[in-house]
Amino acid sequence: MAPVKNGRLLFNEVPTGYPEPGKTTVYDETETIDLDNAPLNGGFLVKTLVLSIDPYLRGKMRDASVKSYSPAFEKGQPIENFGVGVVLRSENPKVKAGDHVYGIFPFAQYFIRPSFDGFRVLENKEGLPWSVYVGVAGMPGQTAYSAWKEYAKVQKGDVVFVTAASGPVGSFVVRLAKADGLKVIASAGSDEKCEFVKSLGADVVFNYKTTKTADVLAKEGPINIFWDNVGGESLDAALQYAARGARFLECGMISGYNGQAQPVNNLMMIVAKELQINGFLVFSLLPKYAEEFYREVPARIASGEFKFIEDVKKGLEFAGHAIYEVQAGKNHGKSVIQVAEE
Amino acid sequence: MAPVKNGRLLFNEVPTGYPEPGKTTVYDETETIDLDNAPLNGGFLVKTLVLSIDPYLRGKMRDASVKSYSPAFEKGQPIENFGVGVVLRSENPKVKAGDHVYGIFPFAQYFIRPSFDGFRVLENKEGLPWSVYVGVAGMPGQTAYSAWKEYAKVQKGDVVFVTAASGPVGSFVVRLAKADGLKVIASAGSDEKCEFVKSLGADVVFNYKTTKTADVLAKEGPINIFWDNVGGESLDAALQYAARGARFLECGMISGYNGQAQPVNNLMMIVAKELQINGFLVFSLLPKYAEEFYREVPARIASGEFKFIEDVKKGLEFAGHAIYEVQAGKNHGKSVIQVAEE
Repeated sequence: MAPVKNGRLLFNEVPTGYPEPGKTTVYDETETIDLDNAPLNGGFLVKTLVLSIDPYLRGKMRDASVKSYSPAFEKGQPIENFGVGVVLRSENPKVKAGDHVYGIFPFAQYFIRPSFDGFRVLENKEGLPWSVYVGVAGMPGQTAYSAWKEYAKVQKGDVVFVTAASGPVGSFVVRLAKADGLKVIASAGSDEKCEFVKSLGADVVFNYKTTKTADVLAKEGPINIFWDNVGGESLDAALQYAARGARFLECGMISGYNGQAQPVNNLMMIVAKELQINGFLVFSLLPKYAEEFYREVPARIASGEFKFIEDVKKGLEFAGHAIYEVQAGKNHGKSVIQVAEE
Repeated sequence: MAPVKNGRLLFNEVPTGYPEPGKTTVYDETETIDLDNAPLNGGFLVKTLVLSIDPYLRGKMRDASVKSYSPAFEKGQPIENFGVGVVLRSENPKVKAGDHVYGIFPFAQYFIRPSFDGFRVLENKEGLPWSVYVGVAGMPGQTAYSAWKEYAKVQKGDVVFVTAASGPVGSFVVRLAKADGLKVIASAGSDEKCEFVKSLGADVVFNYKTTKTADVLAKEGPINIFWDNVGGESLDAALQYAARGARFLECGMISGYNGQAQPVNNLMMIVAKELQINGFLVFSLLPKYAEEFYREVPARIASGEFKFIEDVKKGLEFAGHAIYEVQAGKNHGKSVIQVAEE
């Protein structure tokens, strides 16, 4: 077969505010690949099926000189994130043609990877859509699952507050908290998102754009567990209405990713209320929880216990738009790029 | 014996910025007490020897309608804090005349207390000055000792940053960290204070008023343990130069007690560096550590292992000034009021 086009989404320039499709990232179709003959050199060739668009990607769109927990994207190279693909050819004994694999993918329709390290073959006995494996059955679900187990220290009667509760992390946390029998207060950024969160069983759901977080917590709190995806105003309100000894699970602070977050004035509550605040990255927690996660969670998704909604765009050329939408909170459900059908 | 004057320091009005002697608190000598005949009703009569002036008192100088971890002072009544006194008469079987007692005292030369709850008889086998029992051998020392044991999670090679390091809490933390073999960076608010901190063995000592905290941490960090007494700018710098997995021990944030603290811009580092932040109050931690503290610490002070400096004012009438000085950082060493000699 003749070489085919290999569309890729390249990192082009560091954004100052929101990432802009066509500027921050550009879609490139100049590269071709010979799927039958491209040399593997002991590696394996993957056809990308789905790619995940996650909030944390914004942090990698920075100048490479700025250090952070995750390396900066390299200008002129494809951005990278979790994906699921099918193996077309393999010279690596750990994986064979036809296997479905999960791992950090370049944003490319096809790629050859030398080593299987960090990748996983997905069995998918439950026959879930592959996109689920970058959502509730992937990194976002793992984030919720492992940090909740590690840091929530659930006690009977606890009240939980979850922000960005319609996303794949927040919605998973709502379900975990309800499975533990807790009262859940949850916020999201549109009435439509709130409807979904209500369907998860959250007890109090509000649209933070039309209702002040502090007002809701004053009435429904104090809170014993805070799952923070947002930072800024919601963190400040959570500090104000935290119960003594509350646990704060610091997963992200998206309100500050694309500009200055609202200042947080209640930091002294950390002392006065003896708060336990844990920041975490799923990469660190996952090794401890990965096997039980894959053993348990896909089946619980298949059974309907863990619901999810997806915001799917078809075609890698739309990934730049999806990245913007996730930063601006304009997606509804887990943002996924369907790069190809099988 | 005829009744004697019983000088008291009364809470008079809520300050807006720094507490002002004669306004926030007033010294009052209108009350008298008959030391021989005042009825005890099953309680005991104490002659106050020393009273402690601590940063946290500012938080109690608020309107009683504002809830916090510690009740507000009552207007027109003596303010209260830790003190040491000698028992003159007792009808309580737990304590007898001549005993030295430690507990929360009203700011009064004499007082009758109905119950011994929360009090402690000090043995003082080491013959330390009584003032030490409100400093390194009292609440401040207990704060340092118990929180360090509970939350520092010391690992070999850790770098520690301590703010307000010349105070009774900070200086104790410096010694604990050096006893654990760690590198200690410490800040204080005057060159004189810095000299004392150097004498404790801290490796890097700087005056935060003349040297930027961020510049020092950029050079001497990253830090693995942060002992925060100050909040604001120093907390922001600590977030910026924290190592992955650093522990933040949040003891106080005095930079915000008398006005708005400097905004903290690096909160996202909590997530990115997987920080473990614990706020604490000594009242909660002490039950777990009190007996070992009193068994160990007075002897280690007597041996010279735990050094201390005191800023002693003689006479309860100067307590209002001392309260201001502690808030403004103008004291040098643990602020103590010597109310009476024995």
